[in-house]
Amino acid sequence: HLFATLSSGGHLRSVSSSYIYYYYICVLSAFRSICGEDGVSLGEAVREQHGKDESVHRCRPPDVVVFPRCVEEVSALAKVCHKHRLPIIPFGTGTGLEGGVGAMKGGVCFSLRNMEQVLDLHPEDFDVTVEPGVTRKTLNAYLRDTGLWFPIDPGADASLCGMAATSASGTNAVRYGTMRENVINLEVVLADGSVVHTAGKGRRPRKTSAGYNLTNLFVGSEGTLGIITKTTLRLYGIPEAMVSAVCSFPSVQAAVDSTVQTLQAGVPIARIEFLDDVMIDACNRFSSLSYPVTPTLFLEFHGSEQSLEEQVKTAEDITQSNGGSDFQWARDTETRNRLWKARHDAWYAALALRPGCKAYSTDVCVPLSRLPQIIVETKEDLIENRLTGPIAGHVGDGNFHCLMVVDPNDPEEMHRVHLFTERLARRALAMDGTCTGEHGVGLGKRALLCEEMGPVGIQVMQSLKDALDPNNLMNPGKILQREEP
Amino acid sequence: HLFATLSSGGHLRSVSSSYIYYYYICVLSAFRSICGEDGVSLGEAVREQHGKDESVHRCRPPDVVVFPRCVEEVSALAKVCHKHRLPIIPFGTGTGLEGGVGAMKGGVCFSLRNMEQVLDLHPEDFDVTVEPGVTRKTLNAYLRDTGLWFPIDPGADASLCGMAATSASGTNAVRYGTMRENVINLEVVLADGSVVHTAGKGRRPRKTSAGYNLTNLFVGSEGTLGIITKTTLRLYGIPEAMVSAVCSFPSVQAAVDSTVQTLQAGVPIARIEFLDDVMIDACNRFSSLSYPVTPTLFLEFHGSEQSLEEQVKTAEDITQSNGGSDFQWARDTETRNRLWKARHDAWYAALALRPGCKAYSTDVCVPLSRLPQIIVETKEDLIENRLTGPIAGHVGDGNFHCLMVVDPNDPEEMHRVHLFTERLARRALAMDGTCTGEHGVGLGKRALLCEEMGPVGIQVMQSLKDALDPNNLMNPGKILQREEP
Repeated sequence: HLFATLSSGGHLRSVSSSYIYYYYICVLSAFRSICGEDGVSLGEAVREQHGKDESVHRCRPPDVVVFPRCVEEVSALAKVCHKHRLPIIPFGTGTGLEGGVGAMKGGVCFSLRNMEQVLDLHPEDFDVTVEPGVTRKTLNAYLRDTGLWFPIDPGADASLCGMAATSASGTNAVRYGTMRENVINLEVVLADGSVVHTAGKGRRPRKTSAGYNLTNLFVGSEGTLGIITKTTLRLYGIPEAMVSAVCSFPSVQAAVDSTVQTLQAGVPIARIEFLDDVMIDACNRFSSLSYPVTPTLFLEFHGSEQSLEEQVKTAEDITQSNGGSDFQWARDTETRNRLWKARHDAWYAALALRPGCKAYSTDVCVPLSRLPQIIVETKEDLIENRLTGPIAGHVGDGNFHCLMVVDPNDPEEMHRVHLFTERLARRALAMDGTCTGEHGVGLGKRALLCEEMGPVGIQVMQSLKDALDPNNLMNPGKILQREEP
Repeated sequence: HLFATLSSGGHLRSVSSSYIYYYYICVLSAFRSICGEDGVSLGEAVREQHGKDESVHRCRPPDVVVFPRCVEEVSALAKVCHKHRLPIIPFGTGTGLEGGVGAMKGGVCFSLRNMEQVLDLHPEDFDVTVEPGVTRKTLNAYLRDTGLWFPIDPGADASLCGMAATSASGTNAVRYGTMRENVINLEVVLADGSVVHTAGKGRRPRKTSAGYNLTNLFVGSEGTLGIITKTTLRLYGIPEAMVSAVCSFPSVQAAVDSTVQTLQAGVPIARIEFLDDVMIDACNRFSSLSYPVTPTLFLEFHGSEQSLEEQVKTAEDITQSNGGSDFQWARDTETRNRLWKARHDAWYAALALRPGCKAYSTDVCVPLSRLPQIIVETKEDLIENRLTGPIAGHVGDGNFHCLMVVDPNDPEEMHRVHLFTERLARRALAMDGTCTGEHGVGLGKRALLCEEMGPVGIQVMQSLKDALDPNNLMNPGKILQREEP
């Protein structure tokens, strides 16, 4: 495979195959001399495993997987790839949802799992630096005794550097923001192997106006501009107390109105999650629960004991004025977890609706006021087109997911899902929204991105890509669909 | 002047002066046909006024000032400039502090004051779009009856698009973030006159993962990548109540420790401002106040009545455990304003220390834990070098300003100030900080930016600049010091 990629890669096109074989041997021995015999794998199982994520995208495995142990090795490996024009695909935990790790043009997968140190924890400055092998759960376990935590929670136990690369967020972005607001600095290996620190080496001021915001250029770049080898993150004090609540509503509108009014009232709500009737029904079946089968909000409040009481009271008054049921609420961790079980298991509950099927999640995000209309129209669309797509949403951000449960071996159904997701995305675009609130563009939304940004916006993005990666080696074929020369 | 700029601009270098005169007439008549006779000014007073900001940087005035009335006119004017390789300098309110509006290479100043509409207010979505002539005070007056406000407050009544261009923040960034966290979308005219919407035209989702974060590339680009002609901003509910407090401390360390502990306790403090003894003394003299002449914190709390009580109680306990005095506190607007008068008048109080002098503000930002050391060392440095530089700081962000009161006609003193500010910036860099927390790079910090970012970082910034503005027409000479070919 590596041999084939070398043959097809631009500068060796007219070279005879014995020369290419020579290069093939050179590349592999260079890789092995950098990260050891164990650090280079050509095995089919390993390649397969590194060629796919949790999406239904059919991806091509990489030609070879390398396992660098430090930034110097990443840089040295990248230099070899650069010299031989081999594509580079960074790999964290493979928990992405848009096919971001597929090796579209073959090439070398950089698995970063062996770089797993938590570095430079500064509790008094509320910051920490981590390597790409560190996941959010690992970090929070590490922080346990410091009174601090990193709240961004996309569901999966993803690599924090991967979360930076895909601009992840999740259930409590409404309170704590997304990765965009919580990354202070990045160490990135560029396509030519050089190493850049996006806010200057080792720097960690809480704010800066020092030149172009490189940090937020690389956050969300999905591996197409460089390999993130360190992320400096903002931490938060663990709240004194947390309270969870569940509330049922007569309509989508009533649930969304409650959300908007709660935010307007200045309640610093930590999570406010919407589940539609189909989703609640699925959760009830999957987890043996008995929530009313109507639009439902799951809420979580963080704060001091006293402020919590007030927050809950305000939110409860608002929900009741919108026809919501009494709060079912919970203070202690165990009861809170039981209460939220439905929300946490939503993905599996959706899958269980059709055993043997796979799930694909849509990801549109619209201004809050447009939520009721888009959700109602989308539910009608689902019914008309005989599709299973329970809805769960981070409703405080205007972001919701249809968890499409599909039979990947039924091309007709896959086609119907594809048309549905395009209609849904265009509905969001028509309502001033975006086709992706938090999953990224990857493979699946490249055409929609063009509609969303317009030709000048795409051209600007392409010119940035060309400036930083002129040979299109970094995760090629993701985000932008460049015509090859 | 325009004639001279045309002559020196690359592609006309070898052309005879009568041809250049022909171009000169063409350019002016094109400008006039785009924005009318009144929309083009060659007058010396107008040019002078548009060639300087509030800093002590000696700037060159532009050759001509144009006053476009809409984005179409900005685009058409930019196309003329692009064709004739004339530098473009965007101008908002001229309230910058780093010489950002100086016409280093002559060229055309785009004064955007005639574009002054508040567009597309969506109260239920907490967003609004404004043109560059709209200042933050104008916007907040416009919002008065909606229950919403835009909290970012750099002190000056600056243009909101200008605040986006310079990544401004100010006293309540500790609670509401900087412009980086509060701009949802920008309309930008690029160097070639094309128009880009950084998040897609008219889009305003609260979060997005749709491709590269163009919005935050232009926020803080100081006019060097394009002209911001519209900004979509995130709004906030006006807090139910506000409380202000003032507290004196025995030492800088005690004041900073109180700040860190207040943040650690999760108090959602809205403002926490530090004034050193010299600053307080200046304020006492200027405003006939009688605060103790010691390190002092000015605090402000936003929230519901009930939550305020708890916030104030927690903060007061913390300050007292660090040896702070009893809070002087105030609830109603009038008393709050009186209490904060010292902080609000700090700039003028500093200036009044040496009548006839000018002020230059430093702007370093370091991790919170390094604040006591850097402030103490900086105060020693000021005394050793016989310089007047009272200190005021957004201490919750680790950002502080020495308000250097200098005689601009005394070159020896100016030189001492220059050496001092360089030492201060390097002290911040050595403590993992930045040379500019919120004022930007402009003219004054270009060399320091190189030290802060390192060669690869600067190279990445330069390659982005080259990609979007290959002829170096957009506000040339700011942020980056490119060697001319």
